[in-house]
Amino acid sequence: MSTVIAPEQKSMEEIVSLCKRRGFVYPASEIYGGINGFWDYGPLGTQLKNNIRDWWWKCMVECPPIGPDGDPVSIVGLDSSIIQNPKTWEASGHVGGFSDPMVDCTESKKRYRADHLVCAVAKAEKGGEVRDLGFLAVMDGDTSVADFEKRAGKLCKKTGGGELLPITHDDLVEYNLLSSDQQTLVWGPDAAQPGTLTEPREFNLMFETFVGAIRNEDAKAYLRPETAQGIFLNYKNVVDTMRVKMPFGIAQIGKSFRNEVTPRNFIFRSREFEQMEMEWFCPPEDSLKWYDFWKNERMKWWESLGINTDNLIFRDHDDDELAHYSKACVDVEYKYPFTAPKYGELEGVAHRGCFDLTQHETHSKTKMQYFDQDLQVRLQKEGLDKEEIKKRTKYIPNVIEPASGLTRAVLVLLCEAFTPDDTRASKVYMKFKPKFAPVKAGIFPLVNKDGMPEIAQNLYMKLREKYTCQYDAKQSIGKRYARMDEAGAPYCFTIDGDTLKDQTVTVRDRDTQEQTRINIDQVEKFMADKMGD
Amino acid sequence: MSTVIAPEQKSMEEIVSLCKRRGFVYPASEIYGGINGFWDYGPLGTQLKNNIRDWWWKCMVECPPIGPDGDPVSIVGLDSSIIQNPKTWEASGHVGGFSDPMVDCTESKKRYRADHLVCAVAKAEKGGEVRDLGFLAVMDGDTSVADFEKRAGKLCKKTGGGELLPITHDDLVEYNLLSSDQQTLVWGPDAAQPGTLTEPREFNLMFETFVGAIRNEDAKAYLRPETAQGIFLNYKNVVDTMRVKMPFGIAQIGKSFRNEVTPRNFIFRSREFEQMEMEWFCPPEDSLKWYDFWKNERMKWWESLGINTDNLIFRDHDDDELAHYSKACVDVEYKYPFTAPKYGELEGVAHRGCFDLTQHETHSKTKMQYFDQDLQVRLQKEGLDKEEIKKRTKYIPNVIEPASGLTRAVLVLLCEAFTPDDTRASKVYMKFKPKFAPVKAGIFPLVNKDGMPEIAQNLYMKLREKYTCQYDAKQSIGKRYARMDEAGAPYCFTIDGDTLKDQTVTVRDRDTQEQTRINIDQVEKFMADKMGD
Repeated sequence: MSTVIAPEQKSMEEIVSLCKRRGFVYPASEIYGGINGFWDYGPLGTQLKNNIRDWWWKCMVECPPIGPDGDPVSIVGLDSSIIQNPKTWEASGHVGGFSDPMVDCTESKKRYRADHLVCAVAKAEKGGEVRDLGFLAVMDGDTSVADFEKRAGKLCKKTGGGELLPITHDDLVEYNLLSSDQQTLVWGPDAAQPGTLTEPREFNLMFETFVGAIRNEDAKAYLRPETAQGIFLNYKNVVDTMRVKMPFGIAQIGKSFRNEVTPRNFIFRSREFEQMEMEWFCPPEDSLKWYDFWKNERMKWWESLGINTDNLIFRDHDDDELAHYSKACVDVEYKYPFTAPKYGELEGVAHRGCFDLTQHETHSKTKMQYFDQDLQVRLQKEGLDKEEIKKRTKYIPNVIEPASGLTRAVLVLLCEAFTPDDTRASKVYMKFKPKFAPVKAGIFPLVNKDGMPEIAQNLYMKLREKYTCQYDAKQSIGKRYARMDEAGAPYCFTIDGDTLKDQTVTVRDRDTQEQTRINIDQVEKFMADKMGD
Repeated sequence: MSTVIAPEQKSMEEIVSLCKRRGFVYPASEIYGGINGFWDYGPLGTQLKNNIRDWWWKCMVECPPIGPDGDPVSIVGLDSSIIQNPKTWEASGHVGGFSDPMVDCTESKKRYRADHLVCAVAKAEKGGEVRDLGFLAVMDGDTSVADFEKRAGKLCKKTGGGELLPITHDDLVEYNLLSSDQQTLVWGPDAAQPGTLTEPREFNLMFETFVGAIRNEDAKAYLRPETAQGIFLNYKNVVDTMRVKMPFGIAQIGKSFRNEVTPRNFIFRSREFEQMEMEWFCPPEDSLKWYDFWKNERMKWWESLGINTDNLIFRDHDDDELAHYSKACVDVEYKYPFTAPKYGELEGVAHRGCFDLTQHETHSKTKMQYFDQDLQVRLQKEGLDKEEIKKRTKYIPNVIEPASGLTRAVLVLLCEAFTPDDTRASKVYMKFKPKFAPVKAGIFPLVNKDGMPEIAQNLYMKLREKYTCQYDAKQSIGKRYARMDEAGAPYCFTIDGDTLKDQTVTVRDRDTQEQTRINIDQVEKFMADKMGD
């Protein structure tokens, strides 16, 4: 029988440690002490990431879903440059608005995110008298209570009598801990005295660089903070060259970069990450229908990865969370071990109206208007008058954007698969859905003689054409199973004495640990059935 | 009958134009006037690139070749970060040495690559008298004579009598066109007077950025100029976690960035590009054997892409081209339309000795030494004495590096496939090997009635599960064939009146333009046979 462990019972520390130990994810530049916010994907992590990448591409570009009218929808792929003409980011609003408020400490010379800072002050002053407040703290959305308390202690203040009381906003005011705008603490966490923090100022999250031989404002360029704008830049090219008609989508997978001030939670928030984004262009009047369509399709897709449905929810954005141009937005959220029992962001499905194309039209003077012949026919059939039809069939399309992180999807599958089990030699196994497992099968000769290695090698050579396999002939079978459990290989095939007699091999199931025998000629079919080929 | 056209007879202008027109490659940020040296891959280009990427990964990581001893060699995958700790690039030598010599023109304020500059001067002075020399020119390795002459005129000087003579080094000296180091022209191509060029200084090709909230020297980081160093950084991690033993390889595909002063020749030399690199770690004493092995394997791989063997050559580096640490290096070269009749760089297979790991050991203080038990057993069998065995079995491995460009491979397949043919409606077709064609099949109903669209859609839905297909029901069959010829789809299946009667469809072959009929149930098997599944 296989076990289901709730996210609350999984430890991120143990997951990160297994990822390092088994070659899923390494800290980047580890031999040089690392570099904060960057990660390298090891042999198993790369294969896992490729599997998710290929499945998304297949579901989006090669075999897109059947639309509401019964026909498959039309989506084409794209791979645009990470560095684009910097005007792109002026038009998109990233140069002006993609920033976090930061404060500097004049004493410690350190810089902090203003909205995180209330997490980290330990002392307070009133009328010249310094007093220990325990630890003032406000959690941000991604921190669980347990995580926070481990890091920062209880969320309370000590009274004179040693009593612990919750911190209130009045406390912050009373002890002069707020700046004039009542937003920011004025005592730096690393400073000996209060009053060392500057007023917050905006810090842009885009990495900057210079293109060409000369360094001046004209040569400044940015690493893209999202892949989406590369799609909008090419909307016109695709319409002009690919014979697409509304509605249609453009999909892209690629790296993006954000100079996060506080990268955290393993690969959840890193400075270099991979995105999977699709922009769906449609007539404005059909946009809400398509929003609902993609919202549901995307949830189905996450479920297709083998994620327990209890760990996935929709979170519709409130009206006051929406950008002025957006009619609706929903997040698909996952219950990460570091957010449980709450959920954290996994994918956003946003109704972006015609905002992006209109911005690029204004900034580039390129016409983005589309004349919709199919809609014209439909409206004519409905008997609408000419003026009304003219008004509704020439438009800048609306956009529905399902945007998710490939590297975040890797994190979710790692968390989901991680299954502690004290009854096993490995104490843990990675319960990936077979289709996404980085190693699909282990192939072992029981002993390295009597012709077993040759038979095992033959099987390995045949299977590896279709499935990522590992040949392992070292140490006991128990140790080999344990290694495959940590790698998450769903099946192991052992060639033993009986194989020589009756051509059967042992199949060992990762989840149930059950062993059965099948004919060696049936192994390929067995794998095909299990992978859903 | 299908045609073979020599590279000399293909025009890059026409190739670039088709790439734009059919959605293979677009100039990046085109609506903002572009950005020099950056390209976006359109729907067909992305699919083509993915096909090459997946084939390389399969041939390297999933099904690596059989080694000299009869067993498959062992290679694992990796996906490391583009931004690494900057110490990486000090150790690798890129901070100090990865640069081009540049000169500034004090009059025009332009900057030029010193080694290209002799291409572009039009006048010369002697004893105060200015004289027209026609056009002084030295080509660089990537420019064909025809290309150059189109751009810069004849490679000669006019004499007083109007005679045309070749330019010599003596001419440069005589007319004071060389700087004191005899390397650089002193008259800028855009300047009215000579003497405006500065002495050359080194310009580093790495893009710089700052990581974190503060911008100072400590926060400076680089976009990787090659994926290889990410592999060396993780050599230790892979050895410690993946149970690999010598010899073995680590393979990686990913983007790299070089701030080229003069990006050119379409996607041949761009500032953002994708690499496919494998580092093969082996005992120093076996390194030349492995060098030969990989040299031959790589040529076989390029041939497996369907490239005409006449267009591929090896170019062994001369001893004076080799880096001090390198024992051998060879380029696989391809006859590009812009180099023909000469060949240009496609892949380098380099013997890098133990240079990189030794550098990282020195800079990071991480021990890179490996103890080779297998070699120990071998040498013991050979009867060597203990001291000798000890000396030879503890080593920093040597590295053989087959390094190629994925985006350059895309260029090669585009050039190779491009086949002008005046007998066709499209005047050109893209003769990709079927396995790599971005669209494998077009599926057409002859007319949009009598149940033909339904049958065609059914076939499309079945085929698209395995092969990238396009359903096309618009305009005449001739026009649809023409579109598929330009996209390079090897087969088109048409559902017509006979299909309704006898369940056969027309198969049209892209190269021969021949049409045959097969049963609709046989289409899947037909495709499998043609794709070599």
